[in-house]
Amino acid sequence: MLAFTVRDKKLVARSKALPKLRPRWALVRVFLAGICNTDVEILRGYHAFRGVPGHEFVGEVAAVNGVSAKEKSKWLGNRVTGEINVSCYAYGYRPVCAFCRRGLATHCARRTVLGIVNHDGAFAEYLALPLENLHLIPDSISDEQAVFVEPLAASCEILDQINVKQFREAAVLGDGKLAQLIARVLRTALPSVVMYGKHKEKLRQAAVAGINTQMVRGGASDLKRVKDNFALVVEATGSPSGLALAQHMTEPRGTLVLKSTFHGAAPVETWPLVVKEITLVGSRCGPFAKAIVLLRSKKVDPRPLITHTFPLSKAPAAIQYAQQPGVMKILLKPE
Amino acid sequence: MLAFTVRDKKLVARSKALPKLRPRWALVRVFLAGICNTDVEILRGYHAFRGVPGHEFVGEVAAVNGVSAKEKSKWLGNRVTGEINVSCYAYGYRPVCAFCRRGLATHCARRTVLGIVNHDGAFAEYLALPLENLHLIPDSISDEQAVFVEPLAASCEILDQINVKQFREAAVLGDGKLAQLIARVLRTALPSVVMYGKHKEKLRQAAVAGINTQMVRGGASDLKRVKDNFALVVEATGSPSGLALAQHMTEPRGTLVLKSTFHGAAPVETWPLVVKEITLVGSRCGPFAKAIVLLRSKKVDPRPLITHTFPLSKAPAAIQYAQQPGVMKILLKPE
Repeated sequence: MLAFTVRDKKLVARSKALPKLRPRWALVRVFLAGICNTDVEILRGYHAFRGVPGHEFVGEVAAVNGVSAKEKSKWLGNRVTGEINVSCYAYGYRPVCAFCRRGLATHCARRTVLGIVNHDGAFAEYLALPLENLHLIPDSISDEQAVFVEPLAASCEILDQINVKQFREAAVLGDGKLAQLIARVLRTALPSVVMYGKHKEKLRQAAVAGINTQMVRGGASDLKRVKDNFALVVEATGSPSGLALAQHMTEPRGTLVLKSTFHGAAPVETWPLVVKEITLVGSRCGPFAKAIVLLRSKKVDPRPLITHTFPLSKAPAAIQYAQQPGVMKILLKPE
Repeated sequence: MLAFTVRDKKLVARSKALPKLRPRWALVRVFLAGICNTDVEILRGYHAFRGVPGHEFVGEVAAVNGVSAKEKSKWLGNRVTGEINVSCYAYGYRPVCAFCRRGLATHCARRTVLGIVNHDGAFAEYLALPLENLHLIPDSISDEQAVFVEPLAASCEILDQINVKQFREAAVLGDGKLAQLIARVLRTALPSVVMYGKHKEKLRQAAVAGINTQMVRGGASDLKRVKDNFALVVEATGSPSGLALAQHMTEPRGTLVLKSTFHGAAPVETWPLVVKEITLVGSRCGPFAKAIVLLRSKKVDPRPLITHTFPLSKAPAAIQYAQQPGVMKILLKPE
């Protein structure tokens, strides 16, 4: 099969054998894969990953190993997306780690992560995942929607971590792909969400979805221009400079959700966290089932965020294009 | 009166008039003042403070303004310590700010802070504070204990912010003055507290107080030597490098309390907060009443932490000495 791997900070085409399947694992033929900022960070060295990137996908189950005929018929030929953290259970490790034992499979101590840590991902014609990671996609959800389930689930994670009902308003810092989804998800639970971003066109897209917007310039002058008394702020700029502004915007005793991951250390003044007694909540992968429900209910429609779909064979050009100003979600489609 | 102010990163002696008293403010004759790392940071430029530093003190009420004879007799001549944040109420601002309205006087938007922000502090013969900030010191508590009420209250703040009953063990990073108090306070509520520090003698002092201890070296090799699965970690090193190790020691979904304030930006990799979904809680000033109860009950005795008491007139030498290796709490005593 055609797959792309990371070498010298670039995506390189390779012809790979189909992945072998452990018991209760499935082979998935990829229909669409999404390019995430994490993939760009991986090219820059994040996690020193050398395999096949790509962790946002929708596809069809092409093979299942080691299950009954009845279970096989539930999966085979059906559309799925998949959770990206592969835990002790899926590898048959016994005893399972302390986190799997507590039901925190996304924090499994031995986990691999699809397209990120020791597990080949979705920038390929096929990928392998354990059945326990897969979620069937209802017919009412299109491929173009389903490919957003993973980042949408990551956005829903915020609703699982904090009780948003205690807030009346949230600020979302950033206007990129993930920030757009987060703002839409928060807007389903809060009467007011304000997005702070640098890009007029991206903010316009958010406004169409019922989100208040405010331009920032990305410098020290922002500190004078932005509101500094949000009880809830989500930092999703994907940039090292976002945290300082987010701290500034969070009121004393407020909650700051940190979503950005990037490679390298950012110089951060941490004393405002202490002086304002801010609670900072790191937030990563989230509940796929909730994301699928949101798509099905049409409360969130991510399709306007798609800028372009490239054939998988053009993945190197696609990931370059994904980094251009103004570009939102780029998809890869195996031919 | 004799007072010391900050000039060119040094403490300089000055002869100052006694502070004027607003209605319901008291003049306090300082018996003892403690030197805190924040005072050292102020010399380095923290908060650009140019007044009289010092926010840990015990003294005697020498004058009270604008209260009934009965209320005056409650205070005059009695020993007190005082909360350091001076709020809207004390200045007579109307309407009061949103935080004072919510009862969060320590986060008052217009606050001054004794010896830190726009308010002369305790490195002087006298200081002024509103009566609402003062706490009477019971006879059973000595001056040498009472001067620790402020940092002990800051340690107790952790118990107010998180439910420590959900934990069985805590790690405290740092072996300095504040870390020592935090470890002792946590030990009153938890069966096991482990202090990680660089100084053998300081760790020995903690061990005497029933705290488990572990040496670290302060470099990358620590990452291999320390336990990385604490559900509760308190970062109190006062050093920019503490946060990285604290993140490493906190287990996924764990709680990291941040106590260190210092001047300047530290390069921090923030992705572990996101990937491990750590909840980081900034923690500053705390409940004085709880600290006084702890001293009274003898559950915490801070006196072994006193290295030396200097006369106030030697404050410049004292604050230099306070920065020497192995030195713990340094006190200043007006003659």
